[in-house]
Amino acid sequence: MTAASTWADGSEFGADGFAALARRGLDLRGGASARRFPGKRIVNVFFDSSLRTRTSMEAAAHDLGMHCVTLNPGKDAWKLEHRDGVVMDGDCPEHVKEAVPVLAEYADLLGVRAFAGLKDPEDDAADAMLGAFQRWSPVPVISLESARFHPLQGLADAATLLHELGDVRKKRVVMTWAPHPRTLPQAVPNQFAMTCALLGADLTIAHPEGFDLDPAVLARVSGIAATNGGRIAVSHDQDESLRGAVVVYAKNWSGWSYYGHREVEAARRATLGSWTVTGAKMAKTEDAAFMHCLPVRRNVVVADEVLDSNRSLVIAEAGLRRWTAMALLERMLS
Amino acid sequence: MTAASTWADGSEFGADGFAALARRGLDLRGGASARRFPGKRIVNVFFDSSLRTRTSMEAAAHDLGMHCVTLNPGKDAWKLEHRDGVVMDGDCPEHVKEAVPVLAEYADLLGVRAFAGLKDPEDDAADAMLGAFQRWSPVPVISLESARFHPLQGLADAATLLHELGDVRKKRVVMTWAPHPRTLPQAVPNQFAMTCALLGADLTIAHPEGFDLDPAVLARVSGIAATNGGRIAVSHDQDESLRGAVVVYAKNWSGWSYYGHREVEAARRATLGSWTVTGAKMAKTEDAAFMHCLPVRRNVVVADEVLDSNRSLVIAEAGLRRWTAMALLERMLS
Amino acid sequence: MTAASTWADGSEFGADGFAALARRGLDLRGGASARRFPGKRIVNVFFDSSLRTRTSMEAAAHDLGMHCVTLNPGKDAWKLEHRDGVVMDGDCPEHVKEAVPVLAEYADLLGVRAFAGLKDPEDDAADAMLGAFQRWSPVPVISLESARFHPLQGLADAATLLHELGDVRKKRVVMTWAPHPRTLPQAVPNQFAMTCALLGADLTIAHPEGFDLDPAVLARVSGIAATNGGRIAVSHDQDESLRGAVVVYAKNWSGWSYYGHREVEAARRATLGSWTVTGAKMAKTEDAAFMHCLPVRRNVVVADEVLDSNRSLVIAEAGLRRWTAMALLERMLS
Repeated sequence: MTAASTWADGSEFGADGFAALARRGLDLRGGASARRFPGKRIVNVFFDSSLRTRTSMEAAAHDLGMHCVTLNPGKDAWKLEHRDGVVMDGDCPEHVKEAVPVLAEYADLLGVRAFAGLKDPEDDAADAMLGAFQRWSPVPVISLESARFHPLQGLADAATLLHELGDVRKKRVVMTWAPHPRTLPQAVPNQFAMTCALLGADLTIAHPEGFDLDPAVLARVSGIAATNGGRIAVSHDQDESLRGAVVVYAKNWSGWSYYGHREVEAARRATLGSWTVTGAKMAKTEDAAFMHCLPVRRNVVVADEVLDSNRSLVIAEAGLRRWTAMALLERMLS
Repeated sequence: MTAASTWADGSEFGADGFAALARRGLDLRGGASARRFPGKRIVNVFFDSSLRTRTSMEAAAHDLGMHCVTLNPGKDAWKLEHRDGVVMDGDCPEHVKEAVPVLAEYADLLGVRAFAGLKDPEDDAADAMLGAFQRWSPVPVISLESARFHPLQGLADAATLLHELGDVRKKRVVMTWAPHPRTLPQAVPNQFAMTCALLGADLTIAHPEGFDLDPAVLARVSGIAATNGGRIAVSHDQDESLRGAVVVYAKNWSGWSYYGHREVEAARRATLGSWTVTGAKMAKTEDAAFMHCLPVRRNVVVADEVLDSNRSLVIAEAGLRRWTAMALLERMLS
Repeated sequence: MTAASTWADGSEFGADGFAALARRGLDLRGGASARRFPGKRIVNVFFDSSLRTRTSMEAAAHDLGMHCVTLNPGKDAWKLEHRDGVVMDGDCPEHVKEAVPVLAEYADLLGVRAFAGLKDPEDDAADAMLGAFQRWSPVPVISLESARFHPLQGLADAATLLHELGDVRKKRVVMTWAPHPRTLPQAVPNQFAMTCALLGADLTIAHPEGFDLDPAVLARVSGIAATNGGRIAVSHDQDESLRGAVVVYAKNWSGWSYYGHREVEAARRATLGSWTVTGAKMAKTEDAAFMHCLPVRRNVVVADEVLDSNRSLVIAEAGLRRWTAMALLERMLS
């Protein structure tokens, strides 16, 4: 492994490094003693809401002896501009070009959460806010979920898969699109595809026609999957996909083809209630485990009967956020 | 005392246990050395605003060597659903059934503040959000004020009464309704009645007709009072009640009978300005001490001349929040 | 130096004391070991947004071994009334007269940020919220920027000037008004004038006619400047002012004469785009360093070419916020 200046999608340390971090998280959960960094500080900047990421990072940092400061631009701190060369006569009183180097004067690591805007595909594909943090920060930057990826979730998911399946290579994993009342970003499904690719799983992504992931992301993670002995397939037949699966990962996302056509997407989405993950759906699998990144809308994305069954891993999966965040902080500070 | 999984109304450790915690708070204020819990963490979830509870808990936890994380759903964290079996296609992206066990993965104790909605008496009587936290949490839950009770305030009030009166049993205490521009919950008056009941005081609750407390709560605390040698009476004559009182506790609350009739209540409330606690009112007592939970609206609930007199205990009472919170955290972690 | 109960404008310890604190900040940045205050706590109350002040104070307090609690009235804590004798039937459920002594029960120091309202000049000149904190607090109060001054910024600016210029006395410093889309307070320009006065600099304040600072503040700081061998001049000719300057400090502020006439001010401001600090403007100086308190609106207040040049000190200046805050906390707790 070499040093990383940004933790953006989980691929920064290579497939082996990623799996090693996930295993370190499992070891820390099992009681391995953590390293101590008493003089270090992370400042986490949340442009969007968070329960797990916020709390698990504060807990992980504290338990490593670090100091953690949390900012919420537009709420307790100034709104931030990230575009280059702009005349700043609008809504944002501060530019990332100042805010980031200044925060780096106070901290050893920066974290940033900035969701996709879902208006302009080029903006979202460029992952502009994370990119601006990365560009202007003299200290390493950790993505707390960006427009494109959610690597801390990926690390906890990897630890969950490794714990559940042992060797993940070539195991039949399904990520299925599921209903939702809102238009959601693609960061989590992109990340889970990346996670499976890095672990060499045999992943099928099941979604209704039109609800494609960003093809550029898909091409990239498919290449990584192949390198690691895995495979990524896409199917529009949920039932068929579930057959033989040992893990089902549910998530809603908006379709890449629907940028600029969100009303069309919403109308189509309203007809897709049958994609909810139910007990009957799970019965088609090989007694698959159920995973979700949370927060999850009960009885929309997934039925109570699945979430409340003993095949649901969602609480342990979220619990691993704490331990894998510790593993990552250890790594970034070493 | 036995272990408690929830601290909801102050009665969990019995009357003796409650008084012992209050006395421990006084001892801690006096310089007694606190126990240390360096590996422990509390996550406090605030659905409603807070100055004293938020700050005193952060201070108490820190001074015990603990880590304290604070979340504000709907502001920095996701809004939370608490109803069972609901189809979550509305405002809340997350259910307590996930959020609470997840937070418990990160913490040793959970705190929650969720005020009464004042729309549906059954909802408020059920104390639904606190109940959901209690139901789904594998770690102990501390109420930071619920729809029905405010036991941390109760503990500070108990310490204040014990410090002021020595033996509180059979002492003449008056809790009087007071004017206010808004419709307020009953958690604080319920709690003060519970506090007096646990300490065996002779409490008179003075309020205008119609502004009754929840009769079920009143029946329960009256029973507890009787067990402890005390008594709870209700009067609609404020002046008569004040005669002979050694402590006056002022508070506004909405009437139990006004659920669904808030405009009627507001119109009636507008005629009750004479219930403001003034110097002339206090002169009817036996040089009574004045208490209030804060925040307090000056010259609406109580006149400046009372709050600024040397018989007002409100600052020391709020100051005891810190020390009694420490006593409770010690107890919950032991 | 004698003890100060409030840190409000930087003059509290005298000119020598102010410079000594700034030098202590530079020493701490250079690696001098800080004192430790493990039993101490500061509660910071932010009525307005903050990035640098919030984060640098949390960092400084933590690195001194202190505990730091941050409150945001109107967001996570109750809105606060500060006027005396008022009937509190409006928007604010709590009075500073309670909130401040209560917070002082939990803390050894209080910090408060409350910007100018820019509606009523008497209110702003009275610095009412800071004054109310100072009046009702039994523990020392630190201004985190008030209606009139921003002394923590002043201390970091002083350290920046001392580092850049060595002896600041009689050096040609220019503070220039600059364009901005909003109506802004005078706290920062007042403070920079005070900072220069305490250090004995030769300060020229350049601004368009009508955009005067509060004449009472100007008279006071001019007196302090004279005492310290410095001088404060006002000019309406930006180009002429810049000639010979070794430091240029840019800032927008609203004109003292425009209270009650904000539309007139906005119309006039719209014609003053030529006051933007550009490379051509900086070329008129003696290779001056560029300073700004941040946040700064790029290409409105100052051009990218200046901010991105090696003569811009803004990041190091903001970085010094952390070290000078540490110096101040050490001083206030000693």
